[in-house]
Amino acid sequence: MVRWLPDAVGRLERAALELYAERGFEQTTVAEIAERAGVTERTFFRYFTDKREVLFQGSAELQRIALAAIAASPEPVVPIDAVASAIGEIAGVLQGGRAHARQRAAVVDAHPALRERELLKMESLASAMSLALEARGVPAAAALIAGQAGITVFRISYERWVADSAADDYRRLVGESFQELKAVTAGG
Amino acid sequence: MVRWLPDAVGRLERAALELYAERGFEQTTVAEIAERAGVTERTFFRYFTDKREVLFQGSAELQRIALAAIAASPEPVVPIDAVASAIGEIAGVLQGGRAHARQRAAVVDAHPALRERELLKMESLASAMSLALEARGVPAAAALIAGQAGITVFRISYERWVADSAADDYRRLVGESFQELKAVTAGG
Repeated sequence: MVRWLPDAVGRLERAALELYAERGFEQTTVAEIAERAGVTERTFFRYFTDKREVLFQGSAELQRIALAAIAASPEPVVPIDAVASAIGEIAGVLQGGRAHARQRAAVVDAHPALRERELLKMESLASAMSLALEARGVPAAAALIAGQAGITVFRISYERWVADSAADDYRRLVGESFQELKAVTAGG
Repeated sequence: MVRWLPDAVGRLERAALELYAERGFEQTTVAEIAERAGVTERTFFRYFTDKREVLFQGSAELQRIALAAIAASPEPVVPIDAVASAIGEIAGVLQGGRAHARQRAAVVDAHPALRERELLKMESLASAMSLALEARGVPAAAALIAGQAGITVFRISYERWVADSAADDYRRLVGESFQELKAVTAGG
């Protein structure tokens, strides 16, 4: 039970997701998550600072992928296109795990504490993308707006992807949402 | 000390802000906030569900103002313009309280727990604006994007307004940020 097991992070995430879905986030303890994952509480805290963080273990990797896409955007850098490519890359990575994404989204949506943490992660991604755009020579104001616009598209297309069984091509949804954003902001 | 005092809500908010700035959010108790405001803990919990919420007492009123602006937008409703007018109305209301807004922003920025709550309030405002646009006949997808775009502009212009002493015309900053958003999203 306390022996070493491979993929402790993945096991902890799945255990937390199951328990939050079964009993609710508030009613679940770290001890229970660790027990279901077959590891110690100490192992849990080696990877995660708290009970919320366990559902966001992939966020650093997604951010890295987005920043690499911005760094690789062709010259001259068009901020909204660079961000569209960054969000498209993230969608490409998430694409394969739709069943997990849907289960996770249902749990996050049902718990304000988890929604708050998700918004903070999105905000962190927006800031990181803005800085990456500035590093490519984009002026600060445009970089800030483009980063936030990217998050808007990410969230809207994510919601569609998890909600609509027919809409399984996440990358295409991202592209469509960018077009919608352009159409809406051109409207005034 | 426990006697009735006018403006308990305002006093509690100011007391919380002072204490969070002096000692930090985590180190402050509801009992201490109530004591400094000259009311009982019970009075605190009559108005606020928790220690975070006390810094967001104005959010319901701001949302009401934004929704009234969308409801009053001229036909035919152009989603991005309706949202620009809603955020402009909010800016007009906040405009007078810049010293308080700066102090509050410094405290919120310094505490992830408060930033999380602020993001959730913004999200709630975005959703409410989207629904108000739908009520005016705007298609759901455009309403969703316009609501999110409005929040982007709100936040970016708010940050400028509190950070830059020279930029004291908040309504004008909102207008400028909307123009920037249009320029950035037209770029691709």
